[in-house]
Amino acid sequence: MTHPDDISEAPKGPKVEDTVLGNLIGYRLKRAYMQIQPEAQRVLAEDDLRVVSFSCLSIITDNPGIVQSELADALQMERSNLVVIIDELEQRGLIARKKVPTDRRRYALTATLRGRRLRDHAAERVRTAEDEIIGRLNGEDRAHLMTVLGRLEDKAR
Amino acid sequence: MTHPDDISEAPKGPKVEDTVLGNLIGYRLKRAYMQIQPEAQRVLAEDDLRVVSFSCLSIITDNPGIVQSELADALQMERSNLVVIIDELEQRGLIARKKVPTDRRRYALTATLRGRRLRDHAAERVRTAEDEIIGRLNGEDRAHLMTVLGRLEDKAR
Repeated sequence: MTHPDDISEAPKGPKVEDTVLGNLIGYRLKRAYMQIQPEAQRVLAEDDLRVVSFSCLSIITDNPGIVQSELADALQMERSNLVVIIDELEQRGLIARKKVPTDRRRYALTATLRGRRLRDHAAERVRTAEDEIIGRLNGEDRAHLMTVLGRLEDKAR
Repeated sequence: MTHPDDISEAPKGPKVEDTVLGNLIGYRLKRAYMQIQPEAQRVLAEDDLRVVSFSCLSIITDNPGIVQSELADALQMERSNLVVIIDELEQRGLIARKKVPTDRRRYALTATLRGRRLRDHAAERVRTAEDEIIGRLNGEDRAHLMTVLGRLEDKAR
């Protein structure tokens, strides 16, 4: 007979063999991301943000006056998808949009004080959520993971 | 004046500041995944596979007789989404579906010889594509990345 306390330790079912898939970096990155993404989504939703709108707000906060094409490049997003998000952030008073003096067809984006505060608050909450998920990953592993992921990105460019 | 050869070395535009986002593991995992995923998609498409149908075929190949619910759990997919993929793999003669003797409402899935060969071929091609992308990541970094990603997944369960 199984003690109720044992449930959390019990395996979720028969172990499925996935050695071939598991040796592919893409598969492993996606699985790791899928552990974190739902939690990030959940905490951001409490601030009426989605992962993508938070990312935009964050980049705009750190790059006052950035134009939409630079933002799209930085987040590897289609410019058409960005427009809706920019509109929403502006309507909520989180960012301001101004015509670029040297090129009046382009808009420079800057976070408002309210936007910057929301970004800081949301980033802190996501970081805390991540820490809860990967808390038992030691600091050295975390640092090494970030370094290698950064190197992977640099190499892929 | 810039020599034409310099183009590949030139930065893609002004450097966008993303320290806050860049310190979030979820963001970094997704960016690393986005470097690899389009290439994986491209090589799999040449075998008429998508990332998700390849993943299913791979798990079925390595777990003969697996039932759909186990497959859905292993890939963290909705069972309803799985049905279409299973149907397609069966129609292409890559897997066979048999009723489970002890529970005739459930189906056991097994890869055919043709399915197993396609899986091996496709996995090899994805691995080669990944190696080209991250080729300059040294073997030690790659091994450490996989270990930490594995640990991250284990911790999150």
